[in-house]
Amino acid sequence: MTQDIRLCEVGPRDGLQMAKGMMPAADKSRWIAQLAQAGLREIEVGSFVSPKLVPQMADTGTVLSAALAIEGLTVCALACNLRGAIAAYEAGAHVLAFPISVSETHSHANVGKGTDAQVDMMASIVDWVRAQSRPMRIDAAVATAFGCSLEGVVPVSRVAAVAQAVACTGVDEIALADTVGYAHPAQVRDAVRATQDAIGTRLTKLHLHDTMGLGLANVLAGLNEGIRAFDSCLGGLGGCPFAPGASGNIVTEDLVFMLESMGYRTGVDLSRLLAAREVLAQALPSEPLRSGVAAAGIPKTFQPH
Amino acid sequence: MTQDIRLCEVGPRDGLQMAKGMMPAADKSRWIAQLAQAGLREIEVGSFVSPKLVPQMADTGTVLSAALAIEGLTVCALACNLRGAIAAYEAGAHVLAFPISVSETHSHANVGKGTDAQVDMMASIVDWVRAQSRPMRIDAAVATAFGCSLEGVVPVSRVAAVAQAVACTGVDEIALADTVGYAHPAQVRDAVRATQDAIGTRLTKLHLHDTMGLGLANVLAGLNEGIRAFDSCLGGLGGCPFAPGASGNIVTEDLVFMLESMGYRTGVDLSRLLAAREVLAQALPSEPLRSGVAAAGIPKTFQPH
Repeated sequence: MTQDIRLCEVGPRDGLQMAKGMMPAADKSRWIAQLAQAGLREIEVGSFVSPKLVPQMADTGTVLSAALAIEGLTVCALACNLRGAIAAYEAGAHVLAFPISVSETHSHANVGKGTDAQVDMMASIVDWVRAQSRPMRIDAAVATAFGCSLEGVVPVSRVAAVAQAVACTGVDEIALADTVGYAHPAQVRDAVRATQDAIGTRLTKLHLHDTMGLGLANVLAGLNEGIRAFDSCLGGLGGCPFAPGASGNIVTEDLVFMLESMGYRTGVDLSRLLAAREVLAQALPSEPLRSGVAAAGIPKTFQPH
Repeated sequence: MTQDIRLCEVGPRDGLQMAKGMMPAADKSRWIAQLAQAGLREIEVGSFVSPKLVPQMADTGTVLSAALAIEGLTVCALACNLRGAIAAYEAGAHVLAFPISVSETHSHANVGKGTDAQVDMMASIVDWVRAQSRPMRIDAAVATAFGCSLEGVVPVSRVAAVAQAVACTGVDEIALADTVGYAHPAQVRDAVRATQDAIGTRLTKLHLHDTMGLGLANVLAGLNEGIRAFDSCLGGLGGCPFAPGASGNIVTEDLVFMLESMGYRTGVDLSRLLAAREVLAQALPSEPLRSGVAAAGIPKTFQPH
């Protein structure tokens, strides 16, 4: 099994959409350039959603355009409906990320329609994208896959069933997302196994939050089941809409430190990655940036692979 | 293999010894009583070391005496030499915790003698304790077992060799301690396996820090190798003497959340545990208290075992 790990930095999208302040497009672009220079090859640069609902993402077109100029970078954008997917395609995105909540209640709250309707939307998007001249990778994120702040427990069997329905639409890849950060390692193991049983290697990635402090333990559980792709966010930005003060996405710095220490290859230079915090700290001075490695410094025992 | 986990709360010792402020003995005792009420059955209440070097521990005798009145509580105390061990015995401690650094440099810095000399000291203590009328459990902590801020890499073979020498002194239990928080999950697996090969089930516990954010991932790696006892600290107090701003011990609240979620039994009531933060926050208002579970609240999906 490969020791190469594909990381997708979701800070410019999942991180910034929860931030209190607004980061100007020029600062976002400088930040994305630094992340790419540190070796991150896949970055979710924004989302094509209503600027009224998520004003932080209103400049996604501008930011995406600048990111496309970075050689070797895979540029991802999120959309929640066909209109957004078309906008992402027309802006030149290499990858479309599309969320589908297992929790009906969360699905209605997040995208205004139920799970089945959102699967149908995914199918329409796949049909539309495949009919275009330029290819665009389509990644679906099966959201609230480890519990929901509105519905509570989300059964593993339901996660696998939704993943199977999503796979039938013809998407390229599927991720399981711990949208609210409730996952624990035994649950990650069970959900990944059930989903692999249903859709095999179409399940490629985990999107994890560190809400309860279990983020990297959940990564380890995923690694043990063969998962080799993860979303993460510099400084662990992102927060949690249902819990003020809660932490956000898993921390890219600490994730890279763990993976490289364990002998996995991420392609990321940890020192350069830490340097990329500076532009973020300057642009959003009131936003707390987490990371054990950043606080303690890279230990002298660190030997990247 | 048992699903019961033995937790030792080390906050009153490892947590407070790094704190900037002083916590009065009466507050320590109130805190320890609340920890015990939450279901923690083993607490390291202090250390018998020079009050000039560690003034926060000067009242350990008073605190230990109060803790002995708590029914069902196993009361532990740390000492670094025979004099301290005798003091712990005479104070009535149920368990003596004794550190032995694998790193020569750290051993000299921490206890003023090298590793071999500290193993000899351990042997003298075991002889002395076994000659007394009352039994006292003797736990040795093999420190800097996952790297040293002074020496750097600590070879796994050396960890196992020191553990074997310590086992020969006749101690009851041995823990591996990530004193500076450099451990990663693959290293935990390797060090635990090598130590188990050397001393079998005499290796019972891991003492982990969360310096790099990998604490709970390292717990998971230990669980996977059969480890069923862990040290932790409420609020993740403790810091790291070599890195200002770095976090401390693994967080008891998040550890209990992870273990109980996974189906392990800790005996701890998570709500009561969170309530025990209050006396700590009042007594040491300038000390940051970490914990994802405390910040986000116990999720509605939580089902303790």
